[in-house]
Amino acid sequence: MTPSINDTATDTVSATGTTIVPVAIAHTPFAEKFAIPRQPALAPAATAVIELLPPFDHPDAVNGLEGVSHIWLLFQFHQVKTEAKLKVRPPRLGGNRSVGVFASRSTHRPNGIGQSVVKLEKVEGHRLRVSGVDLLNGTPIIDIKPYVPYADAIAGARNDIAPQAPAAIRVEWEAEARHQAEEEARRLGEAVIDLTEQCLAQDPKPAYQNPDAGRRYGVQLWDINVTWHYPQPDTIRVLNISRCDIPAE
Amino acid sequence: MTPSINDTATDTVSATGTTIVPVAIAHTPFAEKFAIPRQPALAPAATAVIELLPPFDHPDAVNGLEGVSHIWLLFQFHQVKTEAKLKVRPPRLGGNRSVGVFASRSTHRPNGIGQSVVKLEKVEGHRLRVSGVDLLNGTPIIDIKPYVPYADAIAGARNDIAPQAPAAIRVEWEAEARHQAEEEARRLGEAVIDLTEQCLAQDPKPAYQNPDAGRRYGVQLWDINVTWHYPQPDTIRVLNISRCDIPAE
Repeated sequence: MTPSINDTATDTVSATGTTIVPVAIAHTPFAEKFAIPRQPALAPAATAVIELLPPFDHPDAVNGLEGVSHIWLLFQFHQVKTEAKLKVRPPRLGGNRSVGVFASRSTHRPNGIGQSVVKLEKVEGHRLRVSGVDLLNGTPIIDIKPYVPYADAIAGARNDIAPQAPAAIRVEWEAEARHQAEEEARRLGEAVIDLTEQCLAQDPKPAYQNPDAGRRYGVQLWDINVTWHYPQPDTIRVLNISRCDIPAE
Repeated sequence: MTPSINDTATDTVSATGTTIVPVAIAHTPFAEKFAIPRQPALAPAATAVIELLPPFDHPDAVNGLEGVSHIWLLFQFHQVKTEAKLKVRPPRLGGNRSVGVFASRSTHRPNGIGQSVVKLEKVEGHRLRVSGVDLLNGTPIIDIKPYVPYADAIAGARNDIAPQAPAAIRVEWEAEARHQAEEEARRLGEAVIDLTEQCLAQDPKPAYQNPDAGRRYGVQLWDINVTWHYPQPDTIRVLNISRCDIPAE
């Protein structure tokens, strides 16, 4: 093949598309999209297990990965049902300013593929223990790649739309809610208090909402319901921690 | 939906897979895989045009991207025909040591998706001018995402398999070859000398080969054939630059 410099090569693209299949599944604390950190690493207490699926569920497929501190997960936004649009309204812009879909990391995008870097804690056979995830429980993973610091960590890169991590909001606890959280942490063997604080510190409510103190918000982490309100606009107070009605299997 | 913490969620994964389609096509200098830099940014002279395809070929889709210095390209390794294996032999390990496919950025991988960060030079309507690419000409792009420095640039990340960029090899020119390269650079309006030097400095031949000085190597960049040899094992000497037989359209 000797393409000319003007060769558009568009005719080599399959019009019917390519089929992709999951290579792994993510088991994470996030039962719903609300309150998931908008980028990984913002919630180091968000631990997860990435379980390789057949025919990739063999330790050979991750051989050598223990020498790598971070991995990329390419995954499907499997609970996004609406069609991709050319412009989106990212939550961090307050939901009232739109940008091109390819200028954002929005979940509503052509092909519905997400990309997150997470910390690799441990390789256990065909399971990877990771932390700092921002994935919904049950997310299909379509690729796992090692982070390559000299290529992926770009010094001096600039992004005017998302120049820095969102400012954290203050999180307080009702004494009884904190006691409940400690109990659930013991039962689950998970960092319930840390994860609750890290998720809520990013203020999950839409940026344009000005909540009155009487309004209750809630989210499910693992099989726990977390309820909070805003005593002041710049403070979250956790009111209640309770087990979901549906028992764990 | 209230999944239990033991919910494997594997039953929500489609066994038939998902169809993905190209959103753009890459026009790059690389007519063949040989001599393409093993990671982007190793060859800043490798400029390319990313052309959005219908129905995404509208300036709206990249609105705001001019405030971003680097972008991720998710793409298909469209010329890789062999089946993915659990273990691969990355060129940088000399081709004789194997690691798990998910511990490498190998082109031979399940779902055949690559991920490269490139410098965004200019947004021109539905075309993006970029530099530091490592993509074959005609590569189908399946997503474009802005680089988010606070999330993507991980300070202190570690990768023992690929700890640093490959050491560069010395590149010299035959006087006549350099003169030819200057001519072709004027004709194409491209940095022919810089790109040739940057690609060859990474020593494209397989790491296990010990070339004798009589052996000739060649690669096509744009519509130019570049020929070189190794006068010593640690030096590349460019012998000839010539136009491909097939004329540009």
